[in-house]
Amino acid sequence: MINKHVYAVIMAGGSGTRFWPLSREKAPKQVLSIINDTSLLRETFNRISELIPNDNIIVVTSRRQVEVIRPQIDGIKESNIIIEPTPRNTAPCIGLAAIHIMNRDPEGIMLVLPSDHLIKDETSFRLKVSTGLKLVSELDPIVTIGIKPTRAETAYGYIQITDDDDELPKGVHAVKAFAEKPNKATALRLLKSGDFYWNSGIFMWSARRILAEIEEYIPEQYEQLMLIAQGFNLDNFEDYLANQYNRIKPISIDYGIMEVTSSPIYMISADFGWSDIGSWDELSRILANGNEKNVTRGLTVVVDSKGNFIYSPEKLTAVIGMEGVLVVNTADATLICPLDRAQDVKSVVEKLRKDGQLEYL
Amino acid sequence: MINKHVYAVIMAGGSGTRFWPLSREKAPKQVLSIINDTSLLRETFNRISELIPNDNIIVVTSRRQVEVIRPQIDGIKESNIIIEPTPRNTAPCIGLAAIHIMNRDPEGIMLVLPSDHLIKDETSFRLKVSTGLKLVSELDPIVTIGIKPTRAETAYGYIQITDDDDELPKGVHAVKAFAEKPNKATALRLLKSGDFYWNSGIFMWSARRILAEIEEYIPEQYEQLMLIAQGFNLDNFEDYLANQYNRIKPISIDYGIMEVTSSPIYMISADFGWSDIGSWDELSRILANGNEKNVTRGLTVVVDSKGNFIYSPEKLTAVIGMEGVLVVNTADATLICPLDRAQDVKSVVEKLRKDGQLEYL
Repeated sequence: MINKHVYAVIMAGGSGTRFWPLSREKAPKQVLSIINDTSLLRETFNRISELIPNDNIIVVTSRRQVEVIRPQIDGIKESNIIIEPTPRNTAPCIGLAAIHIMNRDPEGIMLVLPSDHLIKDETSFRLKVSTGLKLVSELDPIVTIGIKPTRAETAYGYIQITDDDDELPKGVHAVKAFAEKPNKATALRLLKSGDFYWNSGIFMWSARRILAEIEEYIPEQYEQLMLIAQGFNLDNFEDYLANQYNRIKPISIDYGIMEVTSSPIYMISADFGWSDIGSWDELSRILANGNEKNVTRGLTVVVDSKGNFIYSPEKLTAVIGMEGVLVVNTADATLICPLDRAQDVKSVVEKLRKDGQLEYL
Repeated sequence: MINKHVYAVIMAGGSGTRFWPLSREKAPKQVLSIINDTSLLRETFNRISELIPNDNIIVVTSRRQVEVIRPQIDGIKESNIIIEPTPRNTAPCIGLAAIHIMNRDPEGIMLVLPSDHLIKDETSFRLKVSTGLKLVSELDPIVTIGIKPTRAETAYGYIQITDDDDELPKGVHAVKAFAEKPNKATALRLLKSGDFYWNSGIFMWSARRILAEIEEYIPEQYEQLMLIAQGFNLDNFEDYLANQYNRIKPISIDYGIMEVTSSPIYMISADFGWSDIGSWDELSRILANGNEKNVTRGLTVVVDSKGNFIYSPEKLTAVIGMEGVLVVNTADATLICPLDRAQDVKSVVEKLRKDGQLEYL
């Protein structure tokens, strides 16, 4: 059984545009059921609730997202939902969770989880997490999970490990560096080298440890967090939080801490079928599973076509003589583009925003 | 002013699938507003009502279409709407109109008009029609309008003229033969020869003349028509008509009469911007008007794309990096295909019918 001081922190405040027109401001990626009938957030919750009791599962989201998130986290009590007044990227989000946990349990250990990733082998996932949490209990380091890369992916950050440290358990490595998303040539080199792993965005540490890191490397954020912690008992805490939190500069945990800290970081290597499902293109590859024919969802009629991804949950989509094309057909908006240009959907969303077509955002 | 014995007969019983998913059984092409805000049928009505009084404009449609047709022919009295119990192609449709007109006016002259074609130069159209009607009044021949071909079109029938007859007015030619839709090589030859014109489907003749033609070349149809004419005063005429009309063999006026008759046929050559708008591809060419960019209708966002036709009257359609593609985005169904495969939409409709997806037909 897991250490009773362990808290899962599911970060569910994202509002990405990469799955437009399916994802919207009121339907962010984590609430979409794009892999199966369950939302990615609920999958994340289910995956971890077999390891950690619901009372110790915390969801952080933003004011704008909380109402659409809530139906997906049935079973989590209200006091375990932390609401950011406005999103400030991952470091403040993690800091806010850390002060909540410290307030409740000074011995608290955090397992930080993105809410919108795919993990196929859940048993392996839980084993790796258990290994990491054990390390945190024993040595109080920063622990992360690195994914064994299978292709020269340019959409992921990378983690470089040092030569194996014989004192560490099998599958645990000391981290040499965190690297930002590489270009294609660099990604090929990293893949070949064998000592680079994909950054899964899954972290484990004690709440005390991560706050100490924030104090050292993002001191102005730490100051704000301490002010917020002092206000927990205020009647008007919500307004107080908004006031203090909005002064925090947005920064990612990778950029703010992981890339700069001199504290020991251990990486657990994993191979549990992970993907951050960062684009329609990637989702298509996952669902195609090596099949060269068409991937279809919903009601479709497909004639003389191959390599297309047709996502049409609510309407009929008919395709004739097309190849390598993405079609996303929702109730009010439809996207059509070559699969390898799916990331450019951002430009459509930007244009809609600029043109004031807010109902489609 | 036009001869008071002239009746326009607008054939509005079609139920084509070539504009699926916009055209449906309950929204045939003639009621669609695909060129501008007015339906093709209403355009046809407006075009001719400047020449012929509403009392002399007759619309023939089928039982299945009449309710969707009615809103488009506001101004036509009920007794001028002829309803075919079931569609039987053009020869029976014209025969049915002919016996109605004979019953009302034995001197009746018919101007037969398809209801779903495009004519850009309406003044020229009315001049050509007037020339034809004058010929019919004076000589009682079969008269048709032939369109000067501008490309080697394989989707149209052709009319071959004889060497000019000096006794005929300028622009009027004696017809040598009617030819079915040619293959590409033949179409090129016809275009070059200079004595082939596109068959517009517009005809003029006396009701008496066309009934005589039907009597000679489709005698079993003539017998049925005479039986129907004898029943005009029956209380249960509607049932009687259904019973008699359904025994008539479907046949086109071209195949049944024009290609076989030895009676004189005169063709009036015309160049008034005619198209039968037979496919999305053709509509795209008409609307593009030589422009190589994208043709869009409705709310669209188009990025890095050219030569596409995006028809999205009710929803938002976003397209990135596509070329030469047709997108038709309706409330419940969407079609995507290369423009030059637009005619294959038939295969989609067939598949839907076979699969029992009747709501999309």
